[in-house]
Amino acid sequence: MHEFELIKKYFSPLALDNKSSLDLNDDVFFNKTNKLAVSVDTYVEGIHFINFKKPDLVIKKILRSSISDLICKGIYPKFYFISGSGDRKSFSKNNLKKISNSLKQEQKKYSINIGGGDTVYSRKLSFTITSIGFSKKIIYRNKAKIGDDIYVTGNLGDSYIGLKVLKKSIKINKRLGNYFKKKYYNIDLNIKFIRKLLSLANTSIDISDGLFTDLDKLINKQKLSYKLYLKDVPISQNLKRLIDLKLIKKINCISKGDDYQILFTAKPSKSNIINKTSKTLGIKISKIGKICSSSYASEIISEKKAKINPKNKGYCHTF
Amino acid sequence: MHEFELIKKYFSPLALDNKSSLDLNDDVFFNKTNKLAVSVDTYVEGIHFINFKKPDLVIKKILRSSISDLICKGIYPKFYFISGSGDRKSFSKNNLKKISNSLKQEQKKYSINIGGGDTVYSRKLSFTITSIGFSKKIIYRNKAKIGDDIYVTGNLGDSYIGLKVLKKSIKINKRLGNYFKKKYYNIDLNIKFIRKLLSLANTSIDISDGLFTDLDKLINKQKLSYKLYLKDVPISQNLKRLIDLKLIKKINCISKGDDYQILFTAKPSKSNIINKTSKTLGIKISKIGKICSSSYASEIISEKKAKINPKNKGYCHTF
Repeated sequence: MHEFELIKKYFSPLALDNKSSLDLNDDVFFNKTNKLAVSVDTYVEGIHFINFKKPDLVIKKILRSSISDLICKGIYPKFYFISGSGDRKSFSKNNLKKISNSLKQEQKKYSINIGGGDTVYSRKLSFTITSIGFSKKIIYRNKAKIGDDIYVTGNLGDSYIGLKVLKKSIKINKRLGNYFKKKYYNIDLNIKFIRKLLSLANTSIDISDGLFTDLDKLINKQKLSYKLYLKDVPISQNLKRLIDLKLIKKINCISKGDDYQILFTAKPSKSNIINKTSKTLGIKISKIGKICSSSYASEIISEKKAKINPKNKGYCHTF
Repeated sequence: MHEFELIKKYFSPLALDNKSSLDLNDDVFFNKTNKLAVSVDTYVEGIHFINFKKPDLVIKKILRSSISDLICKGIYPKFYFISGSGDRKSFSKNNLKKISNSLKQEQKKYSINIGGGDTVYSRKLSFTITSIGFSKKIIYRNKAKIGDDIYVTGNLGDSYIGLKVLKKSIKINKRLGNYFKKKYYNIDLNIKFIRKLLSLANTSIDISDGLFTDLDKLINKQKLSYKLYLKDVPISQNLKRLIDLKLIKKINCISKGDDYQILFTAKPSKSNIINKTSKTLGIKISKIGKICSSSYASEIISEKKAKINPKNKGYCHTF
C-alpha cells in the first residue's frame, strides 16, 4: 500500500478540515487562521541519501528538499527544525562542525533560521526536518483547470545521473561526473520565483518523486487528464550529451525524481507574463504540456510523436 | 558530551536571536512576532519506549510527552505532526488502526489536531513529533528569582516504577503493577493549569529527565542555588507503600524522569493564589523548595534532615 493511501485511510479522518490540513493529501500543512505553513519530512540513510561521508552536502540537500515543499507552494520558508538520530560517529565533533557550517551557509542563502531540534542515539542514521513559513495564501494541489498549460522550472534528470555516478552505476568522465554529482547534492531552489508563482499558478508541486508521479499527485483528486510533450521537458546540455551517446534514455532520467523543480499549471492567458517573468528573474520556465478533460486518457508524446506509457513512473515511499 | 552542550556549541550561533529561539537552550522554540511555539522531539524504540507491542499506548505516551513541552510553558498545543520510521510490521494495518484510534482520543482530550507527517521505511522504529501552539507569551527558562518558591504538580516517581514493572526488574502484586504501568503509559498532563501557570510562574519546565536534572536545567544560565525538601516531594500512596516496604528509595524514583509534571517557581506572595488554584482546578500543586543565592550550594534535605547529593541525578540524552 502506498504512503498516501495509508495516510488517507487512517489519518485523514483526524485532520481538522479539508481546508486547513489540505486533507493530509498535500506535502504542506496550511492553516489560514494562523497563516501557518508546515512541512515535515524524514530522510533515512540508504533510502533518501546514500551515506554520510559528506555530512555537509547531505544536510544541505535534505534541508533544501524540506524547504522546497514550501517554496513550490508560494511560501517563503522562515524557520526549520532538525531532529537527528544517529551514532557517535555520525555526530562526531568534526561532523557537527561541518553540519553547522553548512547550515550557516543555507541560512544566509535562503533567509531561514534554525528554531531547534533534537538529537537521539540510534544505530540507523536519519533526520526529520520541520520547515515553517507564514503566508496569507498558499497554492493548493488539485486546482488545475481544463486547458491549463503545464510548466516546469529548471532542468530535470541531472540529479538522477548524479546518483548513478555516486553509486558507480554509470561510467562517464570525471568532469561530467562532478557536474552531475554537484547537481545531485546542490538542489536548485527557485526562491526568487515564490511571489510571482503565487499569483500565476493555479496549482503546484515540487518534483521529488519524478515528473509523472508528481504530475499524477498534483491532480489526484481531480477528474482530469494531461498531455505531456517529452521533447519539451527541459534537460541540461550535459544530460543531452549522455542521451545522444545512448548512455541513458530521457524518459528514464526525468521520471526518477530528486529534481526539486517546480511543476505548476497556469491559464493559457498567463503565457506571456510567465515568459517575461522567466527572463526578468533569470529562471528557466518551460511549457511541457496541457491539462485536458477526463474524456481523454493521459498521454506522454515521445519525440517521435508516439504515445508512451513509462513503466516506472517514479519513486514511491512504500514499506 | 551532553546533548545540550553539543547543541550549544555548534548550533546556538545559528539561532535567530536569544529571545526568539530561547537560545536553543529550551525545549520549546518561541517566536514573538509570529506568536509561534514549536517543540520537536524524537522517540526511539528501546530508548524512549520499550517496544511497540502496544502501539496505541506508545503513541499516546509520546504524543503527550511532546505536547507537555508546550503545556509546561503556558501554551495550548494546537497542531501536531508525526513522522514515523519503521518496518512493515510496525505499520501494519492493525497497528495503524490502533494508532489512529489512539490519536483520535488524544485529539478530543487535548483539543489538538494532526497537521501531517511522514512515513519512511527503517528497520529501527522511531517517531519524531512536532507540536505547535500559538501564544503572545511564554514562560521562559532561567527566569527564577532569589526567594522564589519551587513547586511541582501531581506526583513523581510512579512512571519509573511502571517502567520497572514492564522491564520485570521489580516484583509487586498484579493490581499494584497495573497501577504503575498505567502511570507509565498515561502521562498526566495539567492542561487545565495552562492559563493560571502563565500568570503565576516566573520560570517552568516539565520533568522528563528527573526532578534534579530538570531543576538544574531550569536555572542552568542563572547564578542561583536551590534548597529542596525531599519530604515535600509529592508521591502517590502506592509509591509510598513500596518505599515503606523498602522495595525502593524515594530519591531514586523521583530522579529518573518520565513524570511530565510541571516544575515551576513563583514569588512567595503567590503562595495563597497557588493553593486556591490547586483547589479550584483539582490539581495537586506542592511546594518543594526555595531558590537561593549562589552564595550557597544547592542542597537536597532528606527526611531525616541530612543533606544528600544523589549520585544519579537523572537521565541525559548522550551519544
